[in-house]
Amino acid sequence: MPAEGEMHGPERTGSGDLPNITAAILERLRARRPRVHCITNMVAQTFTANMLLAAGAIPSMTIAADEVASFVARADALLVNLGTFDAERRTATGIAIETATDEGIPWALDPVFIDRSDQRAAYAKSLIAKRPRVVRLNAAEFAALAGQNAQSDALAHFAVDNLTTIGLTGATDLVTDGVRLLTISNGDPLMERVTAMGCAATALVAACLAVESDAMTATAAALLWVDIAGEVAASRARGPGSFAVEIIDAIHAIDGETIRRLARVQ
Amino acid sequence: MPAEGEMHGPERTGSGDLPNITAAILERLRARRPRVHCITNMVAQTFTANMLLAAGAIPSMTIAADEVASFVARADALLVNLGTFDAERRTATGIAIETATDEGIPWALDPVFIDRSDQRAAYAKSLIAKRPRVVRLNAAEFAALAGQNAQSDALAHFAVDNLTTIGLTGATDLVTDGVRLLTISNGDPLMERVTAMGCAATALVAACLAVESDAMTATAAALLWVDIAGEVAASRARGPGSFAVEIIDAIHAIDGETIRRLARVQ
Amino acid sequence: MPAEGEMHGPERTGSGDLPNITAAILERLRARRPRVHCITNMVAQTFTANMLLAAGAIPSMTIAADEVASFVARADALLVNLGTFDAERRTATGIAIETATDEGIPWALDPVFIDRSDQRAAYAKSLIAKRPRVVRLNAAEFAALAGQNAQSDALAHFAVDNLTTIGLTGATDLVTDGVRLLTISNGDPLMERVTAMGCAATALVAACLAVESDAMTATAAALLWVDIAGEVAASRARGPGSFAVEIIDAIHAIDGETIRRLARVQ
Repeated sequence: MPAEGEMHGPERTGSGDLPNITAAILERLRARRPRVHCITNMVAQTFTANMLLAAGAIPSMTIAADEVASFVARADALLVNLGTFDAERRTATGIAIETATDEGIPWALDPVFIDRSDQRAAYAKSLIAKRPRVVRLNAAEFAALAGQNAQSDALAHFAVDNLTTIGLTGATDLVTDGVRLLTISNGDPLMERVTAMGCAATALVAACLAVESDAMTATAAALLWVDIAGEVAASRARGPGSFAVEIIDAIHAIDGETIRRLARVQ
Repeated sequence: MPAEGEMHGPERTGSGDLPNITAAILERLRARRPRVHCITNMVAQTFTANMLLAAGAIPSMTIAADEVASFVARADALLVNLGTFDAERRTATGIAIETATDEGIPWALDPVFIDRSDQRAAYAKSLIAKRPRVVRLNAAEFAALAGQNAQSDALAHFAVDNLTTIGLTGATDLVTDGVRLLTISNGDPLMERVTAMGCAATALVAACLAVESDAMTATAAALLWVDIAGEVAASRARGPGSFAVEIIDAIHAIDGETIRRLARVQ
Repeated sequence: MPAEGEMHGPERTGSGDLPNITAAILERLRARRPRVHCITNMVAQTFTANMLLAAGAIPSMTIAADEVASFVARADALLVNLGTFDAERRTATGIAIETATDEGIPWALDPVFIDRSDQRAAYAKSLIAKRPRVVRLNAAEFAALAGQNAQSDALAHFAVDNLTTIGLTGATDLVTDGVRLLTISNGDPLMERVTAMGCAATALVAACLAVESDAMTATAAALLWVDIAGEVAASRARGPGSFAVEIIDAIHAIDGETIRRLARVQ
């Protein structure tokens, strides 16, 4: 486990550091097999569960109001994903976040497609007030949330103002807690051609939060892991169908050596 | 884009024509990346989203009553699939079709399994009265809808009476708007061994409607595309599991040359 | 079809018997193509449908209260899986079991994750009182259901007391109707790294119940089939992603010779 304070900014967590930290986190995750409860959208559920299982975590997915508290209380981390925004999921989300807060269980928010609906954006804002440890989103979603373009300054301000960590994914990923900032230049364009890839990445962030108390580190490690898995998968795939299969295999197989060799982090 | 009137019947749109038109439509689709909102069943959602992404479209899938209008209004086409027929989807369907009608957004209907339930058949009939541009179904579903066997005459009458285009899939596909009739003899038996294959084909019809105003042409192009992808996939697959992966790759990779070489259209 | 009384205990249904019986059952299933209605969780639906299609069955999945009775009445077997435990599924479950009971349609219960929620465990107990032909579960779920560890004696008592057959899956599978007991030592650790593998196995049990009236035989055949498919898949897979694809291909392709060669049954 990295010593306290090993990551304080891009200067100290460049390409020499994050790869080793990530290698340590994925070893811990595979050894501890944390439980991750996921309130996620109907399209993403199967792929997310398989990504978590491949990573070494144990997913659960119920959204029933009368049992979600039991599941969250026995979990090590929580994912809240807004990709389908139905009444049952909203009720479950309220209960799940309250349970996680009471029990000190870290949770990550994925405000999928809030740029497509004002109601969904307003709901996402109400959830951010409940203090997710991490918000993982893309540039369009950040703009809908913050009313600003997704420049690193705006991300940092948003993180500080909302006491959270931002993981912005795109051609380059940016991770910031407002003080520190990391960029990850790994990944592959095929990642945008498979549904729920971002949703599954946020689930991996939640899994890393279960074994790494520093949210900035957990987020960067998860995104680096999935991005490098994406590169490995792309080298073997013939298109988005085989890519979706190969990335699950790569999440499962990847080792510290591969991460150190391929990481492009600043 | 094909000139107006380029397709008026099998005589004029035989193997020389539809393949080239299809090649042009899939190029437009890949270039324009239309948004397709899908109200589809829980079993089909992931495969449908991945098929649309592989084709070049951008899927969305929410069924929440308070945001579905926002999503449809920002989409280029709408899919309504009855494969799971729950209360929330029915509410969403009513709103979505009203929005699509108001905004002039084309929509396609997939009346899955209406032969298994009278209630579902009655609901499908009520939706056809709202004028889908295309109805894609199989022979058993057509019989449940029209009270007649799926002969080409019955299909043509149904299309005229309901001001729609019919895409009937099976060993041979038939497409008719009541005036024109096309048959497509491509495809592979493994297509029936993967769940949601027909659902995904209808989603592809909707995506083609977003870039081709003639519903007959859009439907025939989508079915030819998916059928030829099925043949390419079958040549590489070892069974239905690998076939489901390979057909996504093939939808993504297929080019005009392959379509022209393999098309069996009359 | 095996003669009455061909299986009365491990002595009589050892490695020489069950493989041949399983080979006969899977031939019947592929020839008859039974309909299996599945009330199953959102995560498992697609994989379950594809497993059933690969096996030769025809799945349906609706949970709508006003049509589920129609679907069940036209089906040859029913699966009830508690993996997502929402209000709509509970209503559908009540109707489906009542219809199955009235029509004499066999049904199998999969009490997923009842060890995580007391409410879910209580609900599972109420369903067992309605006499599923088979309950397929793992050791933690059995303990939550029976209040005892999953030893073979406890399984047998539970089967007798509840007039059902138990299929307990794990590193070794145990099948008992209280009188007879079989153990199956096939399978692969990767089966635990793919979501819904157990759910799909229970669906295969339901499919076998449609073509084999002895619940003990149907359960053992289904578990042997899926376990051997898991071994075939593992020999070809690079990780859990490709394993999930290969096991569908193997379920589809496996023949009696492979089952006889690989079966480890006592």
